[in-house]
Amino acid sequence: MQKNISIITIGDELLIGQVVDTNSAWMAQLLSAKGMQVVRRVAVGDTEASILAAINEEKKHADIVLITGGLGPTSDDLTKPVLNKYFGGKLVLHEEVLTHITTLFEQILKRPITQRNIEQAMLPDVCTVIPNKIGTAAGMLFEQDEKIFISMPGVPQEMKLMMQHEVVPLLLEKFSFQAIVHETIVTYGVAESSAADMLIDFENRLPENIKLAYLPNYGLLRLRLTGTGANGSQLQDAVSNLKHELKNLLAEYCVAESDLKMQEILGELLLQRKETLCTAESCTGGYIAHLITSIPGSSQWYEGSGISYSYDAKERLFGVSHHAITTHGAVSEEVAIAMAEGALELLSSTYSVAVSGIMGPGGGMEGKPVGTVWMAVAKKGKTITQKLHFRFDRQKNIELTAMNALNMLRSFILAEDMHKS
Amino acid sequence: MQKNISIITIGDELLIGQVVDTNSAWMAQLLSAKGMQVVRRVAVGDTEASILAAINEEKKHADIVLITGGLGPTSDDLTKPVLNKYFGGKLVLHEEVLTHITTLFEQILKRPITQRNIEQAMLPDVCTVIPNKIGTAAGMLFEQDEKIFISMPGVPQEMKLMMQHEVVPLLLEKFSFQAIVHETIVTYGVAESSAADMLIDFENRLPENIKLAYLPNYGLLRLRLTGTGANGSQLQDAVSNLKHELKNLLAEYCVAESDLKMQEILGELLLQRKETLCTAESCTGGYIAHLITSIPGSSQWYEGSGISYSYDAKERLFGVSHHAITTHGAVSEEVAIAMAEGALELLSSTYSVAVSGIMGPGGGMEGKPVGTVWMAVAKKGKTITQKLHFRFDRQKNIELTAMNALNMLRSFILAEDMHKS
Repeated sequence: MQKNISIITIGDELLIGQVVDTNSAWMAQLLSAKGMQVVRRVAVGDTEASILAAINEEKKHADIVLITGGLGPTSDDLTKPVLNKYFGGKLVLHEEVLTHITTLFEQILKRPITQRNIEQAMLPDVCTVIPNKIGTAAGMLFEQDEKIFISMPGVPQEMKLMMQHEVVPLLLEKFSFQAIVHETIVTYGVAESSAADMLIDFENRLPENIKLAYLPNYGLLRLRLTGTGANGSQLQDAVSNLKHELKNLLAEYCVAESDLKMQEILGELLLQRKETLCTAESCTGGYIAHLITSIPGSSQWYEGSGISYSYDAKERLFGVSHHAITTHGAVSEEVAIAMAEGALELLSSTYSVAVSGIMGPGGGMEGKPVGTVWMAVAKKGKTITQKLHFRFDRQKNIELTAMNALNMLRSFILAEDMHKS
Repeated sequence: MQKNISIITIGDELLIGQVVDTNSAWMAQLLSAKGMQVVRRVAVGDTEASILAAINEEKKHADIVLITGGLGPTSDDLTKPVLNKYFGGKLVLHEEVLTHITTLFEQILKRPITQRNIEQAMLPDVCTVIPNKIGTAAGMLFEQDEKIFISMPGVPQEMKLMMQHEVVPLLLEKFSFQAIVHETIVTYGVAESSAADMLIDFENRLPENIKLAYLPNYGLLRLRLTGTGANGSQLQDAVSNLKHELKNLLAEYCVAESDLKMQEILGELLLQRKETLCTAESCTGGYIAHLITSIPGSSQWYEGSGISYSYDAKERLFGVSHHAITTHGAVSEEVAIAMAEGALELLSSTYSVAVSGIMGPGGGMEGKPVGTVWMAVAKKGKTITQKLHFRFDRQKNIELTAMNALNMLRSFILAEDMHKS
C-alpha cells in the first residue's frame, strides 16, 4: 500500500520570510526520486502549540512525518522537548551521542565544549536515535499507531547527510513504496495555453495513473508527465512512450528531452561540437557565469568571463573604445558588439555572448528606461545583436536577461548548423 | 485583535521538489514588514481533495488565508473550480477581466487569444475579483464566517504585483493589525552555543512579548529580536534598546546592526572610504560578482571581475605566468596571489580579492582534495593569502568560498584602519 509523507519545517524565520525553505524542496526531490510521495509540506513557528498542532494534523494526512528544524542548543529550539512530551518520554543521556559531540568539539571544531552542547546528548528514551555525523543535533525516530515521525536538524548539510545515509535507507527497508516515474520535456517559444490546445487529444487519452503538468518559467515551458503504479518497469515504459509522443507533438518547440536547465542544454550542444564559450557581462554582473559554472564539468566548454561594472572596465577588459561609450552610451548595440568581439579575442573561445543593460531600480534615462538590455552573440567573422526590455525588479530582470542571452546563443549555434547542412 | 495569516501554495511541482517555493517567503516578508503575522505555510498538490483539506484546516488556524497557484489556463489548474464549488458560486463572465485579457493579447503579447484564455474571464459570482495587471489569471477574494480567503496566481511577478498593489492595501483597510517589530544584528566568528552562553542573563530579562532567535548561516550568526504589541512606537523603542544592549554584549563579533548580507556590509565599508573593489574568480565562477552586483548601487564601489575557468584564461586575464601554473598548479598560493595582483592592475581598483579552488564533485588530486581553496586579497603594495578546505557539495562549497572571501576582504580593510590609527 502506498505510504504518504508529510514534511514539517519548524522556525519563525520561515514565517517572516527571513529564510527561503530550500530544505523541503531538496527533501521532496530526493524522496520523489526514490518513489516516495510527499503529499504536504507545512512550515510552522517556534511555539509548542504550533508544533503540536502540526504533528496532530500531519499524522492524519500521512504515514510518515518528517520534521526539520528547532534542534539547536539555544532556548528558541523547542522541537526536542515538545516531541519528548508528545510521545511521553523522558530525556536520558545517550552515551554514543555524547562521545560524538565531544570528539566533534575536540578534533574538528577545536573549541571548548559547552554545557548546552553536552545537553544535546540528552535524548528521549522513547525514540530511536539517528546519528548526525557532522553536527551536534541527533535525529530522532518515534513510532505511534503504525505511523513514523522523524525529527532532523534544520542545518541543510546536516539534514541532507542524514536523509541520504540514514532516513531514506530506513524508510525503504521499513515500507514498500508504489513506483513513481517523472519524465519532463522542455520547450521554448510556446505559451502554456497554446501548448495545451495542441495537446487536447493527448491529454484526453492519458490513462488515470499518469498526469501531465505545465510548468512555465522564464520563457521556458516544462511539460512533466508523472505516473504512479505497482510495476515500476511497466510504468517507466508507459511514461517514456507518452513522453516520446509529447515530444513529437511539440517537436518545433522542444529544446530538451529531460528536465535540463538552459545552461545544461547549451553545455551539451557545445560538448557535442567540441566548441567553447566565453561571456562578457555588464548588467548581469556574473550571473550568467554563475549559472554556467554551477554545472559540474562546465570547464570543458567554458573559458571564463569578463565582468565590466564600470566604463573603465569595459575599455580595459574588452577594448571597447572610449568613443563608442561616450557617443552611444554603455547600453547600446555598439558597446554590446564591442564587448562580445573583445571577449572573443581576450578569452579565445568559439563563441562569446555579451550583455549590457539597466537592471534597476535606478539608472534609467531618456530613451533607455530601466529594463533596457542589448545583447550580442559572436563567433569569428559573425556577430548578431538583440534588444530587449524587461519590466520587473532587479533580480528578475537579471535572471531574464541571463536566460535570454543563453537562449540567443543556443539559437545562434543551431542556426549555424542549419547553414552548414 | 490580532489577525493571523496562513499561506497555501498549490502545485505538484512543490511536492516533488521541482520548484523551490520562493513565493511564500517573499509574501511572508512583505506581510511581516507590515505588521501582519503569518502563522503557517502549507504546500499541497494539484488535487481537489488536497486543496479542500488545506482550506478547511487553514481556516481553523488563521483569519486570513492567502492561496497562490493553480490559476493557469490548463487542465492541471484546479484552484478556481475548487474554490467556486467550496464557496457555492457559479462561474460568470467578468467583462472587465475579458477586456483586460483581450488587450493583453492584442497589445503586449501580440499573439492570437485562445478559448482557454477567454475562459480565464469566467469567475465565481460569489467572489470579489482582484485585477491582475500583467497576467491573465485574476485574483479572487471570498468571505465566509468573518474569515477572508484570497486566491492569487503562482507566477511570481504576477503574485508580487497583486500583493503589493491590491492585497496588502485591502487587508490594511479591512483589519487593524498588532504591531510587529523585528531587529537583527549580524555577528561573525562566534558559535551559536557560545553566543547563547553570553546571553543567558539577557534572555532571562526579555519581556514576554519580545523573543530572541539565533540564525546561523555560512559562518555568520544573525540574532533577531521580534516584539509584538499594541503600541508600535513604544514597541520599537523597547526592541531598539534591547538590540543596543545585545550589540554591546557581543561587540567583539558584531559586524552589522541590521539584517545585512556580507556583501552589503562590505559595500558600506567601501562607500564610506570612497574605495573600490574588483574580483578575480576561478572556482566560484562569477558567484562573488553576482552576490555583489545583486545589490543596487554596487557600481559605485565595484569595478568588475575576471573569471578564469581555464589555465589559458588565467594567463590572458591576469597575466598569471605559465610557469607558476605548471609548477604550482592552478590551485596554489602563487596563482591566487598572481590573480589578485593581476586583477588589481587590470581593473584598477583599491582592493582585489581572488579565489582558486576545487569545488567538486570531480577535480580532486593528490595533496589537493576536492574542497581545497586558495584565496588572496590585495591592495597596492600588500597581498595576503589564506587556504581553506570545505567538505560539502559543489553549490555549498561555492557559497562558502564566496562568503569567506568577502569576509577576508572585510577583515583586511578593517585591519588597514587599525594600522593607520
